[in-house]
Amino acid sequence: MTDLETRMMDLGRRARAAAVALRDAPAAARTRALEVLAQKLTAAQAQILAANAQDVDAARANGMTEALIDRLALTPARVAGMAQAVATIAAVADPLGVETERWTPANGLDIARVRTPIGVLGVIYESRPNVTADAAALCIRSGNAAILRCGSDCLHSSLAIAGLIAQALDEAGLPADAVQLVDTPDRAAVGLMLTGLDGAIDVIIPRGGKSLVARVQAEARVAVLSHLEGLNHTYLHEAADLAVARAVVVNAKMRRVSVCGATETLLVDRAAAERLLPPVAADLIAAGCELRGDAEAVALVPAMIPATEADWTTEYLAPILAVRIVDDLDGAADHIARYGSGHTEAIITTDSDAAERFAARVDSAIVLINASTQFADGGEFGFGGEIGISTARLHARGPVGAEQLTTYKYVVRGQGQIRP
Amino acid sequence: MTDLETRMMDLGRRARAAAVALRDAPAAARTRALEVLAQKLTAAQAQILAANAQDVDAARANGMTEALIDRLALTPARVAGMAQAVATIAAVADPLGVETERWTPANGLDIARVRTPIGVLGVIYESRPNVTADAAALCIRSGNAAILRCGSDCLHSSLAIAGLIAQALDEAGLPADAVQLVDTPDRAAVGLMLTGLDGAIDVIIPRGGKSLVARVQAEARVAVLSHLEGLNHTYLHEAADLAVARAVVVNAKMRRVSVCGATETLLVDRAAAERLLPPVAADLIAAGCELRGDAEAVALVPAMIPATEADWTTEYLAPILAVRIVDDLDGAADHIARYGSGHTEAIITTDSDAAERFAARVDSAIVLINASTQFADGGEFGFGGEIGISTARLHARGPVGAEQLTTYKYVVRGQGQIRP
Repeated sequence: MTDLETRMMDLGRRARAAAVALRDAPAAARTRALEVLAQKLTAAQAQILAANAQDVDAARANGMTEALIDRLALTPARVAGMAQAVATIAAVADPLGVETERWTPANGLDIARVRTPIGVLGVIYESRPNVTADAAALCIRSGNAAILRCGSDCLHSSLAIAGLIAQALDEAGLPADAVQLVDTPDRAAVGLMLTGLDGAIDVIIPRGGKSLVARVQAEARVAVLSHLEGLNHTYLHEAADLAVARAVVVNAKMRRVSVCGATETLLVDRAAAERLLPPVAADLIAAGCELRGDAEAVALVPAMIPATEADWTTEYLAPILAVRIVDDLDGAADHIARYGSGHTEAIITTDSDAAERFAARVDSAIVLINASTQFADGGEFGFGGEIGISTARLHARGPVGAEQLTTYKYVVRGQGQIRP
Repeated sequence: MTDLETRMMDLGRRARAAAVALRDAPAAARTRALEVLAQKLTAAQAQILAANAQDVDAARANGMTEALIDRLALTPARVAGMAQAVATIAAVADPLGVETERWTPANGLDIARVRTPIGVLGVIYESRPNVTADAAALCIRSGNAAILRCGSDCLHSSLAIAGLIAQALDEAGLPADAVQLVDTPDRAAVGLMLTGLDGAIDVIIPRGGKSLVARVQAEARVAVLSHLEGLNHTYLHEAADLAVARAVVVNAKMRRVSVCGATETLLVDRAAAERLLPPVAADLIAAGCELRGDAEAVALVPAMIPATEADWTTEYLAPILAVRIVDDLDGAADHIARYGSGHTEAIITTDSDAAERFAARVDSAIVLINASTQFADGGEFGFGGEIGISTARLHARGPVGAEQLTTYKYVVRGQGQIRP
C-alpha cells in the first residue's frame, strides 16, 4: 500500500468506528454539537478569513478566474451565513429513531419501521469552503459519520473549519472522527474514496459540477447519491393568470441563473401565446435575459433569437431562456418527458383540473403549480438545508436534507411467535 | 451492433414506453391484470407443466443435480401456489399515488410527497420458474415495467408463463410490453442488461445465489437492489423464558434451513447458559441439527463439535448452528456487529428494557423481539410478496415488496409564490 492508501484506509476505519458512536448518541448531543459549531464559526471568523486569504492568494497566483475566486472567497457576511446555516440545521427536528410506520399483520407481530443513519458518507466537493460546514452539519444531524474531500483550492479554509467541527463534536461528547476532512490535495484520494475504502464508506455524494458528478458516477464502486442537472421547464397553460405568469417566470429564470432550480425552457400554450408571451418576454428582456424561441414564438416576439434543437437540451445556468409554443398540456408534458432531466417543472394556470393533470403526468422530482422553480431547495422545503437535489430514482428524489440521509430498520415485537 | 444488442436495445425502448403507460394507468387496471393472470395460471396448468417437462428433461439430460431439478420442476401444487401468490399481490393496497407526507413550510407552499413507480426494473434470476410470475406481479402492482431474464434452464417454463402475463396485461388494457422476458438463453444478454440498455433500465434486481449477486454488483452500471446473505443471530438473553427460547430457536434454525431468514448463530448469555442451553441444544439435536460451539458451550453440551472462527462467518443454509456464549447484551451486540450481515437478528427475553436496548443497538434490517428470524419475509410482513430481502442501506432495507419498488415525487401547490 502507498502511504496515501494507508492513510485513507485509516480514515475509513476511524469513520466507521465513529459512525457507531454517533448512531448510539442521543439527539441532544448531536444538536449540542451543531449549536457549538455555529458559535465557533462566529467566534473564529478572523481565523477562518485568514486561512481563506491563503487559499485566495494561492488561487490568484495560479491564475484562477475571478468567477471561481468569487466561489472560493469568504467574507464576514459569508462566514456569518455559514454559522446561520449550521444553526438552522441544529433547530431541525432530529430524524433518528422516528417510527414512520407501525402495524400488525395477520401473524400478530407488532412491526415498526424506525429511521436510522446510513452509516458513513463520503462527500466530494469543489472549492466552496461553506460546503465543509454545511455537509458536516447535515451529517451530524442525520447521525452519519462523514469523510469530506474538498477541492484542493480551498484546503486551508476547509482545514480551519474542520478544526472547529472537531472541537464542537468533542465538546458535545461525540467522537471528533465523526467528521474527517481529507487533509491532502493529492487527487488520488478521490479515487480511493470511490473504491469505498474496503467497505468503510456506504455512499458517495458528489456535490459540484457536471464533470465531477460524471466522474463519480462512472468510477464509484459504492452507491452514489447525486444529481446530474436541472433542465427545468415552466409551462404557461392557456388558463394562466397573466400577473402570476409574469412574476413567476421572471423569478424562475432570473432570481439566480446559476442554481439548479432555475428554469431553462419556457413552454407556452398556443391558444394563449398571444396574450401571455409578449408581456412575459418584455419582462425577461428588461431583466437582461436573452430569449431563444421556436418560429411561432419569434413571430410573436421578434426580439427573440431563433432556437435550435440544442436549446431544448441545454442547461444554460446563464441569463438565457429557450421558448417553445406547444399544442396543449399533453404537448408540454411530452416536451418535458423528452428533453427534461427529471428535476423540477412548473405549470402556471388558474384551471385546477389542468394543474392536477400536469402534476400527475409529469414525473419529475418536483412539480410545482403556480410557483417558481427556484423553490427547488431543501431550505425552502423546510429541511433546514440540503446536500443537493437528487434526480436519481432510488432512495431520495428532490432536495436531500438530513431526513433523506437516513435509512430505516424494522423493529418487530413478538410474544414468542414461531413461523408455521 | 450485434443482433443480440439490437434486440436488447429494442426490448429496452419498448419497456420504457410501456412504463409510461403503466404509470398513468389506473390502479384498477393493474389489479385487473393481476386477477386475470392468477386465473390464467390456474387455467393453463397443463400447458405450463408441459413446458416445464421440456426444461426438466433437458436439464436431466445435461446432468443437472436432483437438488437443482427440484428447484426447477413444477407440479400441479406449485402452479397453484404461483397463481395464489399472484392473487395475493392483486389484493394488496395499490402503492401508487399515495401521499406519504404533506406540509406547508414558512413560504406558504403546500408540499405533498407522492409515491410513483421507479420506471423500468431489470430482474435477473436463476432457474426457478415461479419467479417469472412473482416478479411480474410485483412489478405490475408497483407500476414498473419489467425486463425479466430467467436462468436458461427454465426458459420454456418461463416463456409459457410470460405468454400468460402478456395476455393478462392486454385483457386489462395495459401494454403487453410492460413485462418482457428475454427469450434467448444467450448469456451475453445479462451483460447487456447490466449496462442499463442506454438508460432504459433504472435498476437491476438480482434474485439468486451469491455468485449471481456478486457478478451483478461488480458489473452493473446502473443502480442495483440486492441482498448478499443472511448471517442471522438469535440471542438468548439471561432473562429469556425457557419455553419461548426452545420453541423459537428450533423454528428459527430448522423450519427451513435454506432460506435467508434462517438463524445461523445462537448467542447465549453466560449467566443463563446452564439453564437455557442444554434443553435448547437437546431440541435442536433431536430435530437433526449439528451444533458447533465455543469451549464454554461444548462444556455444557458435550455433543457439540468445537467451533472455529470460520463458523461465526458462515451462512450454512443447512442444519448446522454455531453456538457462542457471550458476556451480556453488549457482548451479543458486538458479536453481531462484527460477524453479522445486517439482515435479521432476534433477542429472546422477558426483560423489556433489555429487548428495547437490543433493538436500538443492533443495526440490522430486521430486529425481532421474542420471535423467530424466519419471519423475515415480505409475505409475513403483510406486503403480499417480496422480490427479496435487502441488506443494502440505500432505498430499501428488509423485505422488498411492491411499495419498496416505488419512489416518490413532490407535488407543490402555490398561489403565485416567487422566491425572495
